[in-house]
Amino acid sequence: MLRNLKVTLAYDGTDFAGWQVQPDRLTIQGELERVLAEIAESPVKVHGSGRTDSGVHALGQVFSCTMANPIPAAGLLRALNHRLPEAVRILAAEEAPPDFHARFSAIAKTYEYRICRSEICPPFESRYVFHCPYPLDEEAMILAAPRFEGERDFRSLATSDRREYETTVRTIFSSTLVRQGELLTYRVRGSGFLYNMVRNIVGTLIEVGQGNVAPEDVDTVLEAKDRSVAGSTAPASGLFLAGVEYP
Amino acid sequence: MLRNLKVTLAYDGTDFAGWQVQPDRLTIQGELERVLAEIAESPVKVHGSGRTDSGVHALGQVFSCTMANPIPAAGLLRALNHRLPEAVRILAAEEAPPDFHARFSAIAKTYEYRICRSEICPPFESRYVFHCPYPLDEEAMILAAPRFEGERDFRSLATSDRREYETTVRTIFSSTLVRQGELLTYRVRGSGFLYNMVRNIVGTLIEVGQGNVAPEDVDTVLEAKDRSVAGSTAPASGLFLAGVEYP
Repeated sequence: MLRNLKVTLAYDGTDFAGWQVQPDRLTIQGELERVLAEIAESPVKVHGSGRTDSGVHALGQVFSCTMANPIPAAGLLRALNHRLPEAVRILAAEEAPPDFHARFSAIAKTYEYRICRSEICPPFESRYVFHCPYPLDEEAMILAAPRFEGERDFRSLATSDRREYETTVRTIFSSTLVRQGELLTYRVRGSGFLYNMVRNIVGTLIEVGQGNVAPEDVDTVLEAKDRSVAGSTAPASGLFLAGVEYP
Repeated sequence: MLRNLKVTLAYDGTDFAGWQVQPDRLTIQGELERVLAEIAESPVKVHGSGRTDSGVHALGQVFSCTMANPIPAAGLLRALNHRLPEAVRILAAEEAPPDFHARFSAIAKTYEYRICRSEICPPFESRYVFHCPYPLDEEAMILAAPRFEGERDFRSLATSDRREYETTVRTIFSSTLVRQGELLTYRVRGSGFLYNMVRNIVGTLIEVGQGNVAPEDVDTVLEAKDRSVAGSTAPASGLFLAGVEYP
């Protein structure tokens, strides 16, 4: 009888070619499957709540997997952390109902994006922020952030790739920007996100900060349903998958 | 007429083979000399306050150098940060008297060593700490720390290498260990330090924490003048050169 597991993890994505397994590349999923196969002594398929791109970090990514090996969840957590690179840390491992799937069961996700505003970015932070020392109208950006909330068509904010979306409509429950010390932090919680959507929202907020887009023009950007009217894609280094919610 | 410069910098030493120039290796001094030569359009020799080993970080390393190029110090700072890797950041650049030398003019140095005590070390901290989740008598370690203070022969705490010391006597002005949150931080300020001395003090404090050495036995360790009686060398990742003082 196969058991189903729910595992929560954090990672520093800087030195990884993203979440998804790729031949001959260091990936988070690849490392997890390699180490789980060692522990389970048979191949284990890892289902993430979603992919993260190269250089993107996680404070609370979730994956599910099934395995026959009866190792207790607490022992599995320790065995995983013992074998994984230090840049990947398992935070929790627990038994899950048979129908739990990290991707299909998710009801909400939260992302965080960190912008460092200091003139000189400390070398211990540069892996984890987008360094933006130039002038920005932060008040305008703070006003613009909640304008992404609601059930909206986010096609203007999806980078096109080979993914086919049934719909580009998503619901954003909250979208806020706050300044704390030298960090400007954008937090967004939603039902789901299109490819590069958070980084494209941040790129659009930067355009607002530079005076190229007014806060009230966020609606116009969304209504255009055209990627070219939104801001450019903000760098991966500032982005963290903060958490995934389940019923 | 050559001008003399005093430059203060911070770096994340994880991906460097230490401070000192080595052929075909990425080093801090090597990167500084490469970039300074580009800016000055002639070779520039960098004199650090001292070497740091591979993986050791700096919050406030200092170097001096002479150059003929009249670029203002503030412009030099910006030009250096523009060309250097993000892991190395210039914090200050200023004109210095002709006799200033980062190493020979130094009167004191401060080092910081960070020990992470949480069960799971966050992946965003593991490059900057020594992860020590096992039981330690921290009270005994805190009591032992100031016992390294004073003018003492630190031969027991010097890793032998090809360096020849005129004397192994050094003066430690302060030596303290404090717990803040999940971090146990050792700070030591002294007239100078022998090779690996701070990491060997920390290794000895770990022995105290494990009950292998009593706090009052620190004197015995020092009086033995024998490297084999002290603790092992704590990992480079936890060590920061915090600052260098000049008259």
